[in-house]
Amino acid sequence: MADAAASPQPLDTVLARIDQDLPEALDRLFDLLRIPSISTDPAYKPDCARAADWLVADLQSLGFEAAAHPTPGHPMVVAQGGAGGPHLLFYGHYDVQPVDPLDLWARDPFDPALEDGPKGQVIRARGSSDDKGQLMTFLEALRAWKAVHGTLPCRLTILLEGEEESGSPSLIPFLKAHQADLQADIALICDTGLFQDTSPAIVTMLRGLLGEEVVIRAANKDLHSGMFGGLARNPIHVLTRILAGLHDDEGRVQVPGFYDGVTELPDAIRAQWQNLAFDHAKFLGDVGLSIPAGESDRTPLEMIWSRPTAEVNGITGGYSGDGFKTVLPGEARAKVSFRLVGAQDPVALRKSFRDWVQAQLPGDCSVSFLEHGASPAGHMQITHPAFEAARTALTTEWGVPAAYVGCGGSIPIAGYFKTYLGMDAMLVGFGRDDDQIHSPNEKYDLECFHKGIRSWARLLGELV
Amino acid sequence: MADAAASPQPLDTVLARIDQDLPEALDRLFDLLRIPSISTDPAYKPDCARAADWLVADLQSLGFEAAAHPTPGHPMVVAQGGAGGPHLLFYGHYDVQPVDPLDLWARDPFDPALEDGPKGQVIRARGSSDDKGQLMTFLEALRAWKAVHGTLPCRLTILLEGEEESGSPSLIPFLKAHQADLQADIALICDTGLFQDTSPAIVTMLRGLLGEEVVIRAANKDLHSGMFGGLARNPIHVLTRILAGLHDDEGRVQVPGFYDGVTELPDAIRAQWQNLAFDHAKFLGDVGLSIPAGESDRTPLEMIWSRPTAEVNGITGGYSGDGFKTVLPGEARAKVSFRLVGAQDPVALRKSFRDWVQAQLPGDCSVSFLEHGASPAGHMQITHPAFEAARTALTTEWGVPAAYVGCGGSIPIAGYFKTYLGMDAMLVGFGRDDDQIHSPNEKYDLECFHKGIRSWARLLGELV
Repeated sequence: MADAAASPQPLDTVLARIDQDLPEALDRLFDLLRIPSISTDPAYKPDCARAADWLVADLQSLGFEAAAHPTPGHPMVVAQGGAGGPHLLFYGHYDVQPVDPLDLWARDPFDPALEDGPKGQVIRARGSSDDKGQLMTFLEALRAWKAVHGTLPCRLTILLEGEEESGSPSLIPFLKAHQADLQADIALICDTGLFQDTSPAIVTMLRGLLGEEVVIRAANKDLHSGMFGGLARNPIHVLTRILAGLHDDEGRVQVPGFYDGVTELPDAIRAQWQNLAFDHAKFLGDVGLSIPAGESDRTPLEMIWSRPTAEVNGITGGYSGDGFKTVLPGEARAKVSFRLVGAQDPVALRKSFRDWVQAQLPGDCSVSFLEHGASPAGHMQITHPAFEAARTALTTEWGVPAAYVGCGGSIPIAGYFKTYLGMDAMLVGFGRDDDQIHSPNEKYDLECFHKGIRSWARLLGELV
Repeated sequence: MADAAASPQPLDTVLARIDQDLPEALDRLFDLLRIPSISTDPAYKPDCARAADWLVADLQSLGFEAAAHPTPGHPMVVAQGGAGGPHLLFYGHYDVQPVDPLDLWARDPFDPALEDGPKGQVIRARGSSDDKGQLMTFLEALRAWKAVHGTLPCRLTILLEGEEESGSPSLIPFLKAHQADLQADIALICDTGLFQDTSPAIVTMLRGLLGEEVVIRAANKDLHSGMFGGLARNPIHVLTRILAGLHDDEGRVQVPGFYDGVTELPDAIRAQWQNLAFDHAKFLGDVGLSIPAGESDRTPLEMIWSRPTAEVNGITGGYSGDGFKTVLPGEARAKVSFRLVGAQDPVALRKSFRDWVQAQLPGDCSVSFLEHGASPAGHMQITHPAFEAARTALTTEWGVPAAYVGCGGSIPIAGYFKTYLGMDAMLVGFGRDDDQIHSPNEKYDLECFHKGIRSWARLLGELV
């Protein structure tokens, strides 16, 4: 009797298996998408645990030794399997963003469905693109490989986090405590996108992120604005005056020392980016905008990939329900994030920001701050052979040359792998700009899911 | 057989009756307080109707012909009764403010209770002071009068509104349509307070109110601040920059033409106010503040009584839940109110404010506005004998000379009575500065309720 596993099958057999198994792969992804694993809201803690357990079971079905490790926050899924070849670590995250405003969703965000879109079928659900759909591309590639070859392609460590959308508070302690278990030749991170929807991309530059919440208090309770208005300090006024000063008229951030460590783009990268012919009119036009609103002397691609930013992500104070309430509130608050580049130091910047706010506080006001994560920018070393393998695999699968690009988002894990495990990372993902991640009606194109699985299979074929 | 109703009883009998009936008067007030008649929130529309019906029944029990007249909003309660003497119109409102934030209430806002306070017993509930407790002082005075005399003291019209806390949209059309029914010699309005908690006060100066809601939109949906941050316009930034410019560093409002029609205080009134020896340190200290935060060249009493203001009463945009969400929102909104004095024209100011906002709008942004009421300031004529009667009655009841004062709040009804019915108004009320109207844990001192009832009985005794 022939032993199929003993004689290696050509890559085409694996790809055919992926094509044939796509409906079942979707069923599995839908199961995972149905779990509302919102990490930032404590109400969903049991759901985060459920998502972790689901992944552990799936990894065990692929032959991994897998477990959900408890942390002070949400569990960390770690799996070990396979043998030989390069030792690859794969990273993804199973937690998702909150779903509000819920009334802007066309369907229940946790009731996934295939829908017809203008550019083909899409998987509609919170987390479909960020990051459950993406992480499943890798697991499905492994499943097809194992079905054809009988074994995993090489030695593999899988690390799936449940706190990526809430600042990853447990990540660094976990990496430190499990340094030996997590050591590999290179980390593969699947949490990024295609370039301009069609070109496969390998991210080599990531912005860091500093998150701060500012709470300004004045009176010890809400006041009647008729009785106290004009006499008592209004904390909304104080907050808006401070936030209005975050940028000057040219879009430059005004926090002292903010640009310390920010470096100019090397000429070679600048030239490559010019070749990418980024269509900022389309990029903005797709969301109803037309004017680059950042630093007036920078190109749109610099604004989103290589320049630091300060953005108010949320503001609240006083009455915001229907109708009107003439209240003079006791407090006002804002959530502010900074995207960091080059060698900007998030810890120093946190202090500088707080000092800057404090210095602007008028009498009768107090301020308190809440931390929401701090990670520096990341720059990838592209010397590991995985980068060349990825370029070949992606270019073949997508029929368009793969590009080295920057990424405006913050995926601090890449920097942490370098710092705490001494390991380089490669970021490859298949999201599209219109996936509406972090927004209502998030989707993942079926094509991206399918070709994403095939891309990983090709990449593994190149590497082993 | 003696006919008690035929021979007038001395005022003391009425006052004794009030004292004796106080527990029953409280029961009646509690019944009314249990109805959550929040006029600004459409969810409470049936409760507003219920409160109106409750008052109609109570007025009928006093011998009035009473009815709840439907309006496009909440019903207007009108009652006619009594004969002879001056024809008095009494005005109050049965609607209440919203109760959020609910978690700051020590008890259910619609489950009233007598509680022991540091200065005696208080009636704790939403609306206890503003305005259900106050309006019931008048009805209870009539009830005691009727019990003793067998008749109402004079010809009376009662007008109880259900939209005072939401801009009174139906009021002017109703006054116009019922001009004949509502004609009286003078209007008595009970929706104000004591001066500095102990001195009875007659308000002769009321600020007007203009309410505006500003909605600024940029992208056609919420964006990921990593993907778009630094490039796409953030409407929170636009809103905070505009609101930050509402005042200059001296506290003066910057909307063009804002001070048109603002007059300086007459020397006589200024001198009288100086005699009031307003203790602004205590007034602010009671709510945890210490510094008058308004126009730098004005006294604290001017700031709250005779100067116009601009206050942001609510602001919201982006994510404000627990944790953090790196969203770049599609819209941001603020509720802004202006307190008006002298001859400031709310209609002209609305246009000026909107033009001022529009002129500051950067590219890719649109703005829309919602109206939330517009009423000019009011100045009372104090020539009607009711003013002298009130001074005598209040001084006797409280043992402290009654003062003519200003009021920072906006009670547009006084101006409307003058404009649409040609009728002067007198504002007398028994609230205290620490009543926390419009805030959590609203209360009305039992002493204010009790002496308020007695004050009206005395005033009626002076007038008839």
